[in-house]
Amino acid sequence: MVKVGIIGAGRIGKVHIASISKGVREAVIKTVADPYMNEETAQWAKSMGVMNTTKDPSDIMNDPEIDAVLICSSTDTHSSLSLEAIKAGKHVFCEKPIDHDVDKIKEVIAALEGTGLKYQVGFNRRFDHNFEALQKAVAGGKVGKPEIIKITSRDPEPPGVDYVKSSGGMFLDMTIHDFDMARFLAGCDATEVYVQSANLVDPAIGEAGDVDTAVITLQMENGALVVIDNCRRAAYGYDQRAEVFGSEGMAAISNDSESSVTIANNQGVTGEKPLFFFLERYMDAYSKEVAAFIDAIINDKDTPLGVEDGLKPVLMGIAAKKSSDEHRPVKISEVM
Amino acid sequence: MVKVGIIGAGRIGKVHIASISKGVREAVIKTVADPYMNEETAQWAKSMGVMNTTKDPSDIMNDPEIDAVLICSSTDTHSSLSLEAIKAGKHVFCEKPIDHDVDKIKEVIAALEGTGLKYQVGFNRRFDHNFEALQKAVAGGKVGKPEIIKITSRDPEPPGVDYVKSSGGMFLDMTIHDFDMARFLAGCDATEVYVQSANLVDPAIGEAGDVDTAVITLQMENGALVVIDNCRRAAYGYDQRAEVFGSEGMAAISNDSESSVTIANNQGVTGEKPLFFFLERYMDAYSKEVAAFIDAIINDKDTPLGVEDGLKPVLMGIAAKKSSDEHRPVKISEVM
Amino acid sequence: MVKVGIIGAGRIGKVHIASISKGVREAVIKTVADPYMNEETAQWAKSMGVMNTTKDPSDIMNDPEIDAVLICSSTDTHSSLSLEAIKAGKHVFCEKPIDHDVDKIKEVIAALEGTGLKYQVGFNRRFDHNFEALQKAVAGGKVGKPEIIKITSRDPEPPGVDYVKSSGGMFLDMTIHDFDMARFLAGCDATEVYVQSANLVDPAIGEAGDVDTAVITLQMENGALVVIDNCRRAAYGYDQRAEVFGSEGMAAISNDSESSVTIANNQGVTGEKPLFFFLERYMDAYSKEVAAFIDAIINDKDTPLGVEDGLKPVLMGIAAKKSSDEHRPVKISEVM
Amino acid sequence: MVKVGIIGAGRIGKVHIASISKGVREAVIKTVADPYMNEETAQWAKSMGVMNTTKDPSDIMNDPEIDAVLICSSTDTHSSLSLEAIKAGKHVFCEKPIDHDVDKIKEVIAALEGTGLKYQVGFNRRFDHNFEALQKAVAGGKVGKPEIIKITSRDPEPPGVDYVKSSGGMFLDMTIHDFDMARFLAGCDATEVYVQSANLVDPAIGEAGDVDTAVITLQMENGALVVIDNCRRAAYGYDQRAEVFGSEGMAAISNDSESSVTIANNQGVTGEKPLFFFLERYMDAYSKEVAAFIDAIINDKDTPLGVEDGLKPVLMGIAAKKSSDEHRPVKISEVM
Repeated sequence: MVKVGIIGAGRIGKVHIASISKGVREAVIKTVADPYMNEETAQWAKSMGVMNTTKDPSDIMNDPEIDAVLICSSTDTHSSLSLEAIKAGKHVFCEKPIDHDVDKIKEVIAALEGTGLKYQVGFNRRFDHNFEALQKAVAGGKVGKPEIIKITSRDPEPPGVDYVKSSGGMFLDMTIHDFDMARFLAGCDATEVYVQSANLVDPAIGEAGDVDTAVITLQMENGALVVIDNCRRAAYGYDQRAEVFGSEGMAAISNDSESSVTIANNQGVTGEKPLFFFLERYMDAYSKEVAAFIDAIINDKDTPLGVEDGLKPVLMGIAAKKSSDEHRPVKISEVM
Repeated sequence: MVKVGIIGAGRIGKVHIASISKGVREAVIKTVADPYMNEETAQWAKSMGVMNTTKDPSDIMNDPEIDAVLICSSTDTHSSLSLEAIKAGKHVFCEKPIDHDVDKIKEVIAALEGTGLKYQVGFNRRFDHNFEALQKAVAGGKVGKPEIIKITSRDPEPPGVDYVKSSGGMFLDMTIHDFDMARFLAGCDATEVYVQSANLVDPAIGEAGDVDTAVITLQMENGALVVIDNCRRAAYGYDQRAEVFGSEGMAAISNDSESSVTIANNQGVTGEKPLFFFLERYMDAYSKEVAAFIDAIINDKDTPLGVEDGLKPVLMGIAAKKSSDEHRPVKISEVM
Repeated sequence: MVKVGIIGAGRIGKVHIASISKGVREAVIKTVADPYMNEETAQWAKSMGVMNTTKDPSDIMNDPEIDAVLICSSTDTHSSLSLEAIKAGKHVFCEKPIDHDVDKIKEVIAALEGTGLKYQVGFNRRFDHNFEALQKAVAGGKVGKPEIIKITSRDPEPPGVDYVKSSGGMFLDMTIHDFDMARFLAGCDATEVYVQSANLVDPAIGEAGDVDTAVITLQMENGALVVIDNCRRAAYGYDQRAEVFGSEGMAAISNDSESSVTIANNQGVTGEKPLFFFLERYMDAYSKEVAAFIDAIINDKDTPLGVEDGLKPVLMGIAAKKSSDEHRPVKISEVM
Repeated sequence: MVKVGIIGAGRIGKVHIASISKGVREAVIKTVADPYMNEETAQWAKSMGVMNTTKDPSDIMNDPEIDAVLICSSTDTHSSLSLEAIKAGKHVFCEKPIDHDVDKIKEVIAALEGTGLKYQVGFNRRFDHNFEALQKAVAGGKVGKPEIIKITSRDPEPPGVDYVKSSGGMFLDMTIHDFDMARFLAGCDATEVYVQSANLVDPAIGEAGDVDTAVITLQMENGALVVIDNCRRAAYGYDQRAEVFGSEGMAAISNDSESSVTIANNQGVTGEKPLFFFLERYMDAYSKEVAAFIDAIINDKDTPLGVEDGLKPVLMGIAAKKSSDEHRPVKISEVM
């Protein structure tokens, strides 16, 4: 049994509490810490089998019984809490991104060195049944050598402008998942990025200095081209699809919906919309990524998404921002 | 070049005129006869390349230049016109059904004997790209030995009661196509039929002594079970699907629509309705069945649907009516 | 918190143990009883949070702390254990069928009278996301008045002959789920059944006096016709689909697969097979049906599937057997 | 009746001969001219109803009876033959592209001025049932304001290197259709293009100075982003899809296949490949584009694709080549 502490009981923290509680039998949540912990959240956490709740993350860091820490707090605390946890000798599961600042990620990399501690970044989509099956098909040679990879990633609704301002921009907040997916599906790193972006959804996002719509082209090390299309708003719900075209064929995945019911009437043949957003679509994936982390601890294996996998998409995001700003293709090596 | 005469310039006659004119290069339409021939139809026929129009079928029967006759007149004239044409030494393409009276079909069979003339019945669906591909898959062993065959056949709108009264009833008018399809897909004859029928669409149809909704089960000679579901009305259009389940798998076909456009919005993901009715769905099939008939004449081959193929579904229809009336399974041999 | 005891730790018992343990937060499993309880099963049960394991069902019946009993033992014990549990004042969740003998089910009905105890039968498919959404669409008027309901239900592999012999026959063992589904989708009872059956899959099943393939037609009280097709073997996996055709349109559901990946290559465009069998397909449904049972207890509501819902499909199964044997339509009232 | 002359009896010339002969009733083909005209082609043309065949295009240009000319010869003759035909007072249907040289297209534009002659460019895909329905949905506001347009365009097999060398390069030969489609779907012109290209299919194509794989991003005047992905080889056949994402939803089209048959077996559920190549996919579209041209002549309307619509995609192709060569976004205005 691995004893874990969870820092952050916001939306994503709650997702992990619930999914560990229901689906990860080899882990028990000893403590949940959140500076805004209140009675309601504490009660709910207890109903989920959490032993203690606190406002102070130190209660986790200083608890010798706790083996591993899940960092689900706000992005600006990820790298410093990672460092603290590593110092305290704890395995770390850190929500994405580790940091917007490459140097801070490098500090985490340095701190890990020689410790033997496990570190995993929360790119949950790799654990989605569709993306997982797609990657498996491609890696298994079902389409030959990958040549063009297309990733569609559209959110149902734009976030508020306050969120946008602190998010690091669309490329580091939203596209970062797609950058990880590009690496996962291509099986290698990107060397260059070109961004064509626009502010079409909400003028306030543009006023905040960000974009909300983009087409992003990546050159991958293995010669494949990747194209990602992003939008902060999709009237029909969360749109998460991908297609890998290769020398011997194509593999593609579609969205999930609540059921397969279709209604045929004099208006046409209508199926359900995709599941609304990431909580609906990726609930199982959240559970599976933590199960993989716990498994890596118990069986002393590499985590499926190490700290380097946390660094690479951040570099891609920074290069993407530069490309969008300077309106030219940008090599990843320029921002390293 | 095969010279053909067409008797009947109603809906189905016009379909054949247009499709021969556009798509059957080895045939030329010399004469079209229809007792109700008017100026408008005659003009239209000429624009389609028809050489003569007349009110009198004898102008076709007595024309030694005409090699083949297409009988597209009302059902009650099919068998007598067939006999006349055979007597006149002409190949015959006859719209379904040859007759509602088995004895009259047998007269046609007798008349044909020893003449060497070609005779084809107009079960056009066998020439539809979907049904043709389905049959080919099944006959090619793709699903192993057929065990359960399901045929969905629903019209978009019920016919008028006058039509119903003279139609011979739903089983001889509408289901007869599905009986032919059952034979085509199973590759053998039926031995027994059971009908569960109802009058759910239009009370006037019931008052006319007919049904408008039915589930029909067939026992086939090769052991397979067939189930047909019929309705005279489908709000979403013409529904013509089939599924063949066998020892090694299943093959299925869906409806055709005008295009593959789907619209995803906050109401769902909507594709087009099926093509509205048989003219839209089977236009190519009408052309291909006549091409096959012409080909059989030119190359002295058997037609794909001989006079026996015209008899069998009529027997199935008569047995179905008996089953519906007497509410019990009826062997085909009972009505032979 | 509802304390439950589970009798039977075979395949379906284990499914309920796991799904309650992971997904039904308002219930705790106090005791699991199985005459064949061994160390391995006991250990596994404990890892799932079960407090006690025993070989003796009386340890459950006599335990005043236990509020509710789940009967997951062999079919021949369902009705007697139901009676015992009711006598002991416990709510009962009973796997289908309650009994093959109508009189024994009536004893259970009589025993329940006036007790206020909850009784639920395990027709899990009503809780499947697809069937649930289909029923909701139909009940919500999306297709108008239901006229033809088609249920496809095919198992991937036939059971062993020993199982077949003790199963009560295909209609009471396998089709019984589809009979329940017919009632669920039509929203009313059947009045008549006609069966066309065959022994096409395994001759040994025929030698054991059973069939393995059937097309079953039902006349429903509301005028709708239902057709069920069954086979004990489907090369592509568990086939569980349905379609409801009504006066204003059609609603249909398809199978579930592990992922939505399709591979296009020079062989065609290939998607995944359906999920293999009921454990894969209905795992969530098993959890939801027990959650509904627990909810009925806690909030003193009717269970969604009362003891009468357990009786009706048995009557339909008995009538179906009679129809298959006597080769004629059989009214349900004949077997009441 | 419009009398047409066709110059060029190669692959595309034959397509037009057959489709006019079968499907365009208001046109008659008086003369087909081809310097390589041989007996076989002449015979075939006559069987299609063509009145004369010749090796000399002057026989068409100088024939006062001929109203309109279809230019289906090699690309390098398109603009000069256009000029000749205009001089001879004939309406012109010209296969794409008019020329690779913008100045020559401008000569055609100048020559047309004030003549009242009709001129149409052969971008056949606009007449495909799927693309037509997609454009209609978008123009009809079904997805709101277009924001991201994705066009997939992949050929089944690369052409020979000799063809590649004389083709003007992939962007002017293959992508030019997609550039037209971008304008058609967006309803406006492009202002900028960025190309990420590669030589992944055949090294000989690279040695000939061309690319065979590309991802192309366009900035459209109305703010929408377009992304096109091209490959000269797709193992599963001709891949021609598009998706338009807008402020209120998304519209998408898929490929066509020969039939809708799917086979489910223990390997999965397999449907047919897309139709092999443009002749199979766009046969109806070829007929419809010429019908539209004839209709414009008869009813004195604008052709749906005027000479300016022939110029714009060439400019886009030249800019795309420049972007590929110089590895930077290129404004269309740079190449005007």
